[in-house]
Amino acid sequence: MYLCLNVKKKIFQYNDPIDTSIMKYIFQCNDCKAEYSSREWQYLCPECSKTNINELPPKGVLKCVYDYPAIARKGIQQLVGSHFIDLYPIEDERNMPTLRIGRTPLYESIFELHGKSIKLYIKDDSQNPTFSFKDRASAMVSAYAKEHNIQTIVAASTGNAGSSIAGIAASQGQQAIVLVPAKAPPAKLTQILLYGAKIVAVDGSYDEAFDLSIEASKAFGWFNRNTAYNPLTIEGKKTVSFEIWEQMKGEIPDIIFVPAGDGAIISGVYKGFEELLFLGLIDRIPKIVAVQAEGSPNIVNNRFSQKPVFIKSNTLADSISVTIPRNYYMTQDYLYKYAGDGILVKDKEILTAIAGLASRYGLFAEPAAATAFAGMKKYLTENDVEKNKRCLVLLTGSGLKDIQSVQNSIHLPAPVKPDLKELQKQLDYNKAPGQ
Amino acid sequence: MYLCLNVKKKIFQYNDPIDTSIMKYIFQCNDCKAEYSSREWQYLCPECSKTNINELPPKGVLKCVYDYPAIARKGIQQLVGSHFIDLYPIEDERNMPTLRIGRTPLYESIFELHGKSIKLYIKDDSQNPTFSFKDRASAMVSAYAKEHNIQTIVAASTGNAGSSIAGIAASQGQQAIVLVPAKAPPAKLTQILLYGAKIVAVDGSYDEAFDLSIEASKAFGWFNRNTAYNPLTIEGKKTVSFEIWEQMKGEIPDIIFVPAGDGAIISGVYKGFEELLFLGLIDRIPKIVAVQAEGSPNIVNNRFSQKPVFIKSNTLADSISVTIPRNYYMTQDYLYKYAGDGILVKDKEILTAIAGLASRYGLFAEPAAATAFAGMKKYLTENDVEKNKRCLVLLTGSGLKDIQSVQNSIHLPAPVKPDLKELQKQLDYNKAPGQ
Repeated sequence: MYLCLNVKKKIFQYNDPIDTSIMKYIFQCNDCKAEYSSREWQYLCPECSKTNINELPPKGVLKCVYDYPAIARKGIQQLVGSHFIDLYPIEDERNMPTLRIGRTPLYESIFELHGKSIKLYIKDDSQNPTFSFKDRASAMVSAYAKEHNIQTIVAASTGNAGSSIAGIAASQGQQAIVLVPAKAPPAKLTQILLYGAKIVAVDGSYDEAFDLSIEASKAFGWFNRNTAYNPLTIEGKKTVSFEIWEQMKGEIPDIIFVPAGDGAIISGVYKGFEELLFLGLIDRIPKIVAVQAEGSPNIVNNRFSQKPVFIKSNTLADSISVTIPRNYYMTQDYLYKYAGDGILVKDKEILTAIAGLASRYGLFAEPAAATAFAGMKKYLTENDVEKNKRCLVLLTGSGLKDIQSVQNSIHLPAPVKPDLKELQKQLDYNKAPGQ
Repeated sequence: MYLCLNVKKKIFQYNDPIDTSIMKYIFQCNDCKAEYSSREWQYLCPECSKTNINELPPKGVLKCVYDYPAIARKGIQQLVGSHFIDLYPIEDERNMPTLRIGRTPLYESIFELHGKSIKLYIKDDSQNPTFSFKDRASAMVSAYAKEHNIQTIVAASTGNAGSSIAGIAASQGQQAIVLVPAKAPPAKLTQILLYGAKIVAVDGSYDEAFDLSIEASKAFGWFNRNTAYNPLTIEGKKTVSFEIWEQMKGEIPDIIFVPAGDGAIISGVYKGFEELLFLGLIDRIPKIVAVQAEGSPNIVNNRFSQKPVFIKSNTLADSISVTIPRNYYMTQDYLYKYAGDGILVKDKEILTAIAGLASRYGLFAEPAAATAFAGMKKYLTENDVEKNKRCLVLLTGSGLKDIQSVQNSIHLPAPVKPDLKELQKQLDYNKAPGQ
């Protein structure tokens, strides 16, 4: 059933089923589909990454593949009752952080647009320990490290991934080392440092920090959390799909809007639903729409490309400002395989979406997260979506993470004397222009 | 059983039991103990606030008092199964925001100090929709307003209470108006404005903004959320005690450390446990320790005073920087009645506590929240607390709310070239001084 060709040790022969007494999952290359034993750790497919070394985006990103028929035979109650542990690349749930990872709220409402009612679900992943979706990935990486007695985890990141691994590692008694480009703004690094992570400011670009982190993890035996490099980040990210399925009581949304930078979150969301499909728990995959800023359109613009052309990114939504999407090939495959879609929004629309989410739902999202909401509005406007379709927007991080970028878009009123008439005057003034 | 004297309408006679077919709860003055029908809205005790008008702290703060024997007779399963609705000043749970209010994680660990093991519980209330404990109070106020068709809620606040009512009101389709002193830093106001609240910057002190908000609510029929003025804020805050009791499966902590500003959170925590005691669900009240910054010691220093002396507050923990604690009398009563305690910590200890919570537990707390943790460490050092005592620390808000105040306490390393040796050198350097 599951093929396994370990190019190094040849433990398994081609065509062998997974012997789950020996291993729970195998690694499969997203590109050449070669399979590798998980008994020996593997970051990238040695074949595909060999031919593509130093080329971006990288080929040879690996997926963890489980023995789905065996898991299906055990039944849904076993799976849900054991918190999906059979679909995780760890043996013992107790190696997961004790922090509440995921289990974030799913809010349901009706969204009216151009006289059409859409059933809108908002998955608020700002409600995570470090206030972003990235904790799902960090938790899985950290749990694996704990299970394998690896004490140090390294990551290259300027933002949410860095603070996430710093916080999660801290909670597990592990040391995180975060490599950042020297130009990263100090405010973003405060959270990382407070968690007790070591920050190395690299005098160079993000890509140089990324490469150095890989070198360092090889040289010092650190576990590397980098996206589209460590296959476990996708394993963490896929948990959101299981949760959505559970919270919707076995139903799934029709369309899911996901903010896209390097494509790792989309891939995670797809992999989660794909596994539910493999297990027969759902009978189709939701349409997933990748939403990007117009200034960082490299997945959406190249989603059908044979020869992708990447432009230098520039958007205020910095968590998804990505020139070369490192998980590009896997994302492209998923979007193709399950008829996904893509849409671009302007920075101005992102700012409007932040205000819309906050003022309508009381949800204060960071720009990248609000991008998904902006994408939904645009997509519903431009496409003939049937009414009563269930749309889900994935909010990936808290607005408190990036106050700066929205501060310019708001206007503080002039002070008034502590007097009732003055107060009234100002409120009337507030109301006046076009309200 | 429950006395009720409505000084305005005399619906009820003194000594009458509550007729729950007529009303679910009554208001009772914290100070003169007079009781008032809840069929007519009441902010402060008309008697006590009349004699004390313009005097601070105010007397005559009201408590909601329920028919505890009747609730007890219905049984614990009914109470828990209906999410404690019998103890809330609203009729229908559906008037509560659909946002996930409370239900925050309770983390359990062992804290070693001077060779003693303490069982440490941390209640992480940064995991609320607007990322602070204040959402519990805002939710109750908003639900009441919804139930009584009040569309506008006003509050005087510079920080968490303001952004909380702005977010919660937004989610309920209500209009929030937040009065702030003109000097409030714009970053703090960004979240409030994005939620669609109207901000009125008052050219004056916090107290003047407070008074103006009260005037305005009287003049315009707005509902006023001010702490130690609207009795429902305590009703929201008490929910944390019910949750702790549930999460500890009917047990309670021995000591609870609560950050204190105006005393409203402490009063809420006490009232929750007191009601569990009234219902026979617990048999004692935990020792509650009010923790304040040395620069804002006005509850701790005056907790036994007949004639309190308040000094001008000055601490980096701005959510608890309070010169005149508006809920002073109720807090003092509770601390006296249930043998509570108080402790002061230095700003430096607060900063150390922020780093300690983050680096040890992966919990990034705002200064006010970390104050409780600092207080616990100090209290356990100074007092002979038996080992295996269960201590709980209440974290009231996210560290992302106030990056500025901690930024000065961290040190960014100098950049290194993207080179393995340089990296190693910096990490060794990081390790060198005393580690």
